Amino acid sequence: MGRGKGSLSRYALLVQYDGTLFNGWQLQDKGRTIQDEFEKAIAVISRESVRITASGRTDAGVHALGQVIHFDLKDEIPLKKICLSINGILPKELSVRNAYKVGYDFHSRFSAIQREYIYLIYRYPLRTPFMQNKAMWINHPIEADYIREVTSYLVGQKDFASFCKKISKEYGTERKIESIDVIEHDDLIKIRFRANAFLHNMIRIIVGTTIQMYRENRDPVYIKKILDEKDRTAGGFTAPPCGLYLNKVIYNPSLNFYESAF
Amino acid sequence: MGRGKGSLSRYALLVQYDGTLFNGWQLQDKGRTIQDEFEKAIAVISRESVRITASGRTDAGVHALGQVIHFDLKDEIPLKKICLSINGILPKELSVRNAYKVGYDFHSRFSAIQREYIYLIYRYPLRTPFMQNKAMWINHPIEADYIREVTSYLVGQKDFASFCKKISKEYGTERKIESIDVIEHDDLIKIRFRANAFLHNMIRIIVGTTIQMYRENRDPVYIKKILDEKDRTAGGFTAPPCGLYLNKVIYNPSLNFYESAF
Repeated sequence: MGRGKGSLSRYALLVQYDGTLFNGWQLQDKGRTIQDEFEKAIAVISRESVRITASGRTDAGVHALGQVIHFDLKDEIPLKKICLSINGILPKELSVRNAYKVGYDFHSRFSAIQREYIYLIYRYPLRTPFMQNKAMWINHPIEADYIREVTSYLVGQKDFASFCKKISKEYGTERKIESIDVIEHDDLIKIRFRANAFLHNMIRIIVGTTIQMYRENRDPVYIKKILDEKDRTAGGFTAPPCGLYLNKVIYNPSLNFYESAF
Repeated sequence: MGRGKGSLSRYALLVQYDGTLFNGWQLQDKGRTIQDEFEKAIAVISRESVRITASGRTDAGVHALGQVIHFDLKDEIPLKKICLSINGILPKELSVRNAYKVGYDFHSRFSAIQREYIYLIYRYPLRTPFMQNKAMWINHPIEADYIREVTSYLVGQKDFASFCKKISKEYGTERKIESIDVIEHDDLIKIRFRANAFLHNMIRIIVGTTIQMYRENRDPVYIKKILDEKDRTAGGFTAPPCGLYLNKVIYNPSLNFYESAF
């Protein structure tokens, strides 16, 4: 549990990105990726070749308000300098929001105990420039209360196989949703999901299924039937990535965050 | 006060735009203008050459959440069709939010009795992709209470010459500010101004002056001294256009809005 392994220092960054023009988090053969942009910027300021690890990979077009990454450096760099220098190099779609010195026991993915995502729906008959690629646009009404009731049946420890794109044999399809909150601001509906972890496309399938149920005049409790099927074909469509934001990653409070930039 | 002059029908549109990539409202020799984009789109759907009039011209980089325009057509077009067709043609940075059939006595500029603007400040040591071109970024603290007190001295009928770029001989420099509200959401400060009309760059100079006063440790009441000078050189810098939004135009309730699309 020391501050380094050999001469390495571990850093964690709180980062944000507009995922619109990116081909997702991970290094790919084709297209720009978010991981690549951060690794290039960190390499410039540290003069070291670094590999970063995120709390989780986000799909193409998904945004982050509070993604967490970690990496190790041989040389120590002051935390404010890390933030300011990296932000000076990164394209305008990405930024660092804070930097932390962390113990070598900190791992952005494995130390995370909860993740919080927001899904944004813009609900009005006509599109708006301000929600372009920032929310899912639906041109028909939908009540926040309907979404609130449908999603309330999903809270708790459950098997979410009906809301999963690719099933991982290693981790199965059970997850624990801690809370789902639905907040309305004029034409915007913000749905906040908190869970220990999420399956692939889980939130987007839950949102798509809820909207589809509304369009098909289903009773909110129908979602329980879909959940019980434990089969992806029982669920509805996958809502677009542009409405999804990784909002926050919650870590075990016993972990050491030695120092922060801001 | 009939519905048309000869065979003309008058329409008003509530429109939105992200002003980032535009060279302001009006037709210019250089650069894209917002007026031009709307006129081209309306001409396509009406097959008439139209000239539109806005409630006021916005400068390059300024946004609108609720700009109002009007124009006359020889042929009648259903209001929903106007909205949907124009939105199908307009670039994604512009959109129609609603359409109205109005009397020939309605004029988007001269019938307006009040205008409401919002100025958005993003206050955090580091930039964020989500406020890029959407707010003024200041990397130092500033309290909403300070802004609230400074701007409170500007409410009422006053001579705003110290906060005006170009003085119009025709209309002078007196205006009546009805209200200024300051709302805080985390790192964002939203300042809402309502007045009968505003001078050229008035809000941007008020915001810039307030921030400059804060940086210079001035007492909030110092703004009265600047106001009393009645000279632009007494005021502070002009805050950037990207933080400014035309939010709402208020019309005389006795005017006829015969019918609306939504």
